[in-house]
Amino acid sequence: MDERDVDEFDCAWRKYEPLTSSVRRLVDLTIRSEADERAVAAAEKLIDAATRLLSRRTLPGSYGIPRTADGRAMPWGNAAIGLRNPIAPPLVLHRAPDDSMWCVADLGAAYEGPPGCVHGGVSALVLDQLLGAVAQRPGEPAVTGTLTVRYLRPVPLGRIRGEASVRSHEGVKTFASGRIVVAGQPAVLADGVFIRPGSRS
Amino acid sequence: MDERDVDEFDCAWRKYEPLTSSVRRLVDLTIRSEADERAVAAAEKLIDAATRLLSRRTLPGSYGIPRTADGRAMPWGNAAIGLRNPIAPPLVLHRAPDDSMWCVADLGAAYEGPPGCVHGGVSALVLDQLLGAVAQRPGEPAVTGTLTVRYLRPVPLGRIRGEASVRSHEGVKTFASGRIVVAGQPAVLADGVFIRPGSRS
Repeated sequence: MDERDVDEFDCAWRKYEPLTSSVRRLVDLTIRSEADERAVAAAEKLIDAATRLLSRRTLPGSYGIPRTADGRAMPWGNAAIGLRNPIAPPLVLHRAPDDSMWCVADLGAAYEGPPGCVHGGVSALVLDQLLGAVAQRPGEPAVTGTLTVRYLRPVPLGRIRGEASVRSHEGVKTFASGRIVVAGQPAVLADGVFIRPGSRS
Repeated sequence: MDERDVDEFDCAWRKYEPLTSSVRRLVDLTIRSEADERAVAAAEKLIDAATRLLSRRTLPGSYGIPRTADGRAMPWGNAAIGLRNPIAPPLVLHRAPDDSMWCVADLGAAYEGPPGCVHGGVSALVLDQLLGAVAQRPGEPAVTGTLTVRYLRPVPLGRIRGEASVRSHEGVKTFASGRIVVAGQPAVLADGVFIRPGSRS
């Protein structure tokens, strides 16, 4: 467990959520801007100034998964769900009463592969995170063994829905499956084998 | 084909490459900064000002894959290889004399899943892009049908090497495989079936 001292959860949230949202908007505009050269050069200067401010004190490495004093995990650097990671949509995962999980996400220009469509690798990222989360048990993190992704039809950029559930357990292995649904139709299917190294069952 | 008018390739590169590099550094610091609240709030203001400058004129939607007058494709919004996409590492793919392909990428804090390691979904993104590229023929884009990713060992953040080659063809299908290599050892394996809808062979 990472024992790095972190601000309390809510306090850190208030400090960093607006910053990360701002950077997400900037990422989108970096791709979609057609402003003139002068504006682009001026924007670059502002961005570098912001980076210098944030550089005053930094973690030596990556974010990791620190915990608050009351034990809450903060996977805030995570590439899929990280609150402080502007690359992450971020996915917000929900657990349904039957223990299945789901998420919705709004995937804009930054997640493009084929024109107007979500990158196949981004769909895989969403499904890896969702299936891994549903396969996990409290205190027993599950790591991906194998992930198979089948692409039935293109996923247009915009709102997607992801769904996942556990199929079965076999020793340290948990078999999970899920899908990305677009306009009520399954568009991408996934099957995963997840390993819970700490499991004895 | 996207007939949107774009600046000439080199000119657009000079205009946008430094901007995107700046945003990539900012993304990293957004995750790793431990600056005080005041600095964070000031950085946020600078970022919003940069976003406003870039918003002066924008594409109506995503970036797509426009072409220069001399026919060069510019997949600059792509989530894995996009020159203008701060989410993309970006991957730079190379073709070897035997037609296999490879890439190296430096994956920092923004690509984290397990602490200190590359997110499994990011490895899938790298491999989807690399296998798709090797499966593609000039003028015949290949779309991913199925991608199977096997995780042999964690991939530490830092420099990774990706490799991919075509195994066989069968009608409109191309079978490709590849891997991510860390310190000379295969860490993630991938097999993919890619469909070339325009193919008649």
